[in-house]
Amino acid sequence: MGAKEKGKRSVPCSKSRHFVQIDLTLSLRAEVPTGDADAGPSKNELKKRQKALEKEKKAAERAAKQQELAAQQAAAEVVRSSRHRLGRLELILDRCRILRQNSTVLCLSTSHRRAPGLPRAQISSFSTLDGQTVLFRARVQTSRAQGNKMVFLNLRQRSDSVQALVTATPEKISKQMVKWTAGLADESIVLVQGLVRKSPEPIKSASVQDVEVHVSQIHLISGIDGRLPFTLEDASRADTDEVIYDADGKPQQFNRVLLDTRLNSRVVDLRTPTNQAVFKLQSAIGDLFRQFLNNNGFLEIHSPKLQGAATESGASVFKVSYFKGSAFLAQSPQLAKQMAIAADFERVYEIGPVFRAEDSNTHRHLTEFMGLDLEMTIEEHYHEVMELLDSLFLSIFRGLREKYSAEIAIVGKQFPADEFKWREGPEGTLKLNFRQAIDMLVEDGVPRETLDDINTENEKRLGRLVKAKYDTDYFIIDKFPMELRPFYTMPDPEDPTLSNSYDFFMRGEEILSGAQRIHDPALLAEKMRSKGVDPDSMKAYLDGFRMGCAPHGGGGIGLERVLMLFLKLNNIRRASLFPRDPKRLDP
Amino acid sequence: MGAKEKGKRSVPCSKSRHFVQIDLTLSLRAEVPTGDADAGPSKNELKKRQKALEKEKKAAERAAKQQELAAQQAAAEVVRSSRHRLGRLELILDRCRILRQNSTVLCLSTSHRRAPGLPRAQISSFSTLDGQTVLFRARVQTSRAQGNKMVFLNLRQRSDSVQALVTATPEKISKQMVKWTAGLADESIVLVQGLVRKSPEPIKSASVQDVEVHVSQIHLISGIDGRLPFTLEDASRADTDEVIYDADGKPQQFNRVLLDTRLNSRVVDLRTPTNQAVFKLQSAIGDLFRQFLNNNGFLEIHSPKLQGAATESGASVFKVSYFKGSAFLAQSPQLAKQMAIAADFERVYEIGPVFRAEDSNTHRHLTEFMGLDLEMTIEEHYHEVMELLDSLFLSIFRGLREKYSAEIAIVGKQFPADEFKWREGPEGTLKLNFRQAIDMLVEDGVPRETLDDINTENEKRLGRLVKAKYDTDYFIIDKFPMELRPFYTMPDPEDPTLSNSYDFFMRGEEILSGAQRIHDPALLAEKMRSKGVDPDSMKAYLDGFRMGCAPHGGGGIGLERVLMLFLKLNNIRRASLFPRDPKRLDP
Repeated sequence: MGAKEKGKRSVPCSKSRHFVQIDLTLSLRAEVPTGDADAGPSKNELKKRQKALEKEKKAAERAAKQQELAAQQAAAEVVRSSRHRLGRLELILDRCRILRQNSTVLCLSTSHRRAPGLPRAQISSFSTLDGQTVLFRARVQTSRAQGNKMVFLNLRQRSDSVQALVTATPEKISKQMVKWTAGLADESIVLVQGLVRKSPEPIKSASVQDVEVHVSQIHLISGIDGRLPFTLEDASRADTDEVIYDADGKPQQFNRVLLDTRLNSRVVDLRTPTNQAVFKLQSAIGDLFRQFLNNNGFLEIHSPKLQGAATESGASVFKVSYFKGSAFLAQSPQLAKQMAIAADFERVYEIGPVFRAEDSNTHRHLTEFMGLDLEMTIEEHYHEVMELLDSLFLSIFRGLREKYSAEIAIVGKQFPADEFKWREGPEGTLKLNFRQAIDMLVEDGVPRETLDDINTENEKRLGRLVKAKYDTDYFIIDKFPMELRPFYTMPDPEDPTLSNSYDFFMRGEEILSGAQRIHDPALLAEKMRSKGVDPDSMKAYLDGFRMGCAPHGGGGIGLERVLMLFLKLNNIRRASLFPRDPKRLDP
Repeated sequence: MGAKEKGKRSVPCSKSRHFVQIDLTLSLRAEVPTGDADAGPSKNELKKRQKALEKEKKAAERAAKQQELAAQQAAAEVVRSSRHRLGRLELILDRCRILRQNSTVLCLSTSHRRAPGLPRAQISSFSTLDGQTVLFRARVQTSRAQGNKMVFLNLRQRSDSVQALVTATPEKISKQMVKWTAGLADESIVLVQGLVRKSPEPIKSASVQDVEVHVSQIHLISGIDGRLPFTLEDASRADTDEVIYDADGKPQQFNRVLLDTRLNSRVVDLRTPTNQAVFKLQSAIGDLFRQFLNNNGFLEIHSPKLQGAATESGASVFKVSYFKGSAFLAQSPQLAKQMAIAADFERVYEIGPVFRAEDSNTHRHLTEFMGLDLEMTIEEHYHEVMELLDSLFLSIFRGLREKYSAEIAIVGKQFPADEFKWREGPEGTLKLNFRQAIDMLVEDGVPRETLDDINTENEKRLGRLVKAKYDTDYFIIDKFPMELRPFYTMPDPEDPTLSNSYDFFMRGEEILSGAQRIHDPALLAEKMRSKGVDPDSMKAYLDGFRMGCAPHGGGGIGLERVLMLFLKLNNIRRASLFPRDPKRLDP
């Protein structure tokens, strides 16, 4: 651009101010620091002079203003004349791609003369690129000027970071460029070109510690408009109560970011290396779930969340205005997946949102969460389902440990946790009957008369007892009392007060609930009535079984719970991208 | 069971009538046909005798009743004494699995003496099993008795079917067993054991045509309670207006099942081979979508469907009662996926329900459908996104053609369609600008002044023009006028009346809409205001961009539309498991 466009400084050359060849001095004005040291005499000095020589005040002020203006112009001039090295990029980075593709016409309107289509490098690969020039987009995590000749940047891509330096050199890099770079706000997005070189000593503040980038060009892609709600450094601190002492032995007071503050500015909070890893692991669990089921003959289905009736169980459902009537949000795909079995799909699974209108403000309840649900036919015994679910979990745990140890380690830095343990080999997963679980709690001192059901507190206690006795964070409880389960649960054939149902636990919290279902319409209607559900209100569901249905069973898994408990995140909101609870609908 | 339990006939041996060793005569009474031919003299004969010998009437009636009873008892006796060969199975097929696993105790309570754990065979593999004994669960599609010594069954598993015969033989199979089998209702579920043998001639009525099964045992797993809403045969007829003539040259009147009738009894409708294949293909499209994106560095996310504000665009949203306030159902994951980009996830996709409160009762609108959405950062030009989306579609089309040709063929029998065509090779997918598309329509005679937008009718017309000229069912229209797109669409840098946006089409209907998005908060707020959206109502969304956001773009695909148009199902309800429209919330 250099000389040719110098005259254009204040004359936009196209119709819209957002897409013109933006005069870089305009858009950069905010970013060019105008520190007092360079810009003229300090205020203290002025005060001194004012006292001594009142007359000279006006003249001095005028002189100061002129100097400041001159400095600004000089800075802008430097920026403009070296815009191939620094400056703000246009919103539309490459506006003439089509032209180029169709006729190899040279691209004249980009604000940087770089050849188009150059690949962008990943910081994670820099250790292997010593001596090579790289081009990459990254966030400015922090910047630190050292005098006026050097600035250190910590540049971040997701969970990876690298140190970069801009050093003033007589031939290439001006002091203005150093200054401009030092003025970049934290969390700005920049496009950087530079040389990867071995660093003289390990860089502890970055994830890539053995190399650094010597910057030759740096351009701003997106700046910051306002103040960050919290720094990424604060948001990434370990979640421990441990006191850290500084060099003088004084306890350090770190800013900790409260969960609510994080969730209010979730977009910034999600940028921490921890959260980048958490959601990579969330996606991994979904993938491992699907892979296992696809390999075992399951079909993925999608069932409607809008329901004509508020049914299934006592749990509250959300009501929706539906044209001139009402609908309800499905609290699980239970009915639909059973109907899919009655429709001969044999083995089905669904990954989709489920909605619970329960006013539960706990660490483990959300009003909307992801259900990993499956349902399958049974040939002889409901343990076919329970065993398949067990194999599914083992496959997920193994997959996480084998393929995602790096992400688990990153999360562990912020949320220290004992490694998640499960039993492998011939002894297999621990399976207790409900009665055995109760006996363990009674032996530990819990009064039997309080144990009609196992509440959250006793669940955790049982988890600790099991961990101590069997050294596992994962186990199954089978044969729950019929009265604790929904109407569609198949009773036990020997003892109808029990049922063919099971829960799965991780670190003492329930993550799956499942059972054999009743496939006989007469028995189903009878159980509905006994649980206070009007069979007529669920006619379509019942009709499915009247037309013949194979024996079947299944289960529903809470994705966020599995993620929270595997990583010990301690609050389910941390395992949900934009969590919803009775008090939060935003962002 | 034989002799030992004969005395027990009317005394249930356990507590619950549903789980006892059900006396087979009780549960079978309804199924055992009690035809007049065997049971005593016919009514005509009685009338004759009545006229001739009035006196003998009472005696004859008594004799008839006795005979009938004796026949029933004999039939029941045969059933009971041969319950290893036929009869209704218990609801709980194998009640002592745990016992057996723990101690190898013999299983005493199953109603059939088969060894437990025998693998179930798939009808689809029978062609390769000539001469082998198979055990399998299947639906009775039809049964046809030939005299009293033989019954032909058409047995179905999903899209596969096979012919089976029960033939009376002196040593093994009684006439009663033939009769019992002939009495099984269509759509009953049975467990069958038999010998696979080459059939003397191809069996046209079954999908497996070269072999048939000679049944040695048949048990009822689940019967039918009531009347089928329609036969599977009727529901599987080709959807053409072609008249079929019978052997005498008369036009045949087939029962056709109306779409509404099908949807009212969707569980039965879904059992047709066509629908089994349709939903296998639906699942396949989701898999191919994920595979491609996983291989291209995308992360799967799950964003909340409950939203605090009714925003995004003019499209109507459903209102939800949310504790003491209100929420709204997301009409797309647009805002959330853009926030995920602002949160540095770089490339994200989501497969989830989207909700549209539009009272559109057309062949291609649903109030709830599956959105396949993606969003990605842009390095230089928005065509990076458009080209990735194009590669994604080609990968889906190729995947379907290569791996699912059998399913496509099955659907084609009921819904005849020209094979879906797209362009491969160096010329690649056809890309038209909006203006070029308009010109094509004008050339074809559509008045230009009616073409501010392309309505459904003109979309289809354009599809036909493109097919005629370029021989493709798949193409892209780029650079839509800004006024046709939502506020978050990035304007074209050269002509701000245009936008960096595109739609994708299959067989002349839109299946994807996408664009580069505005990542600059000031421009975004300006565009919001110009489209009548209050920026304050979307503060969390805008805040995401204020804290720095990379240029990005994406698109949203309607899963059911892709499925409907690829297969030419002609109505989107056929591509949804349990469709929702303004008039349907059930089943």
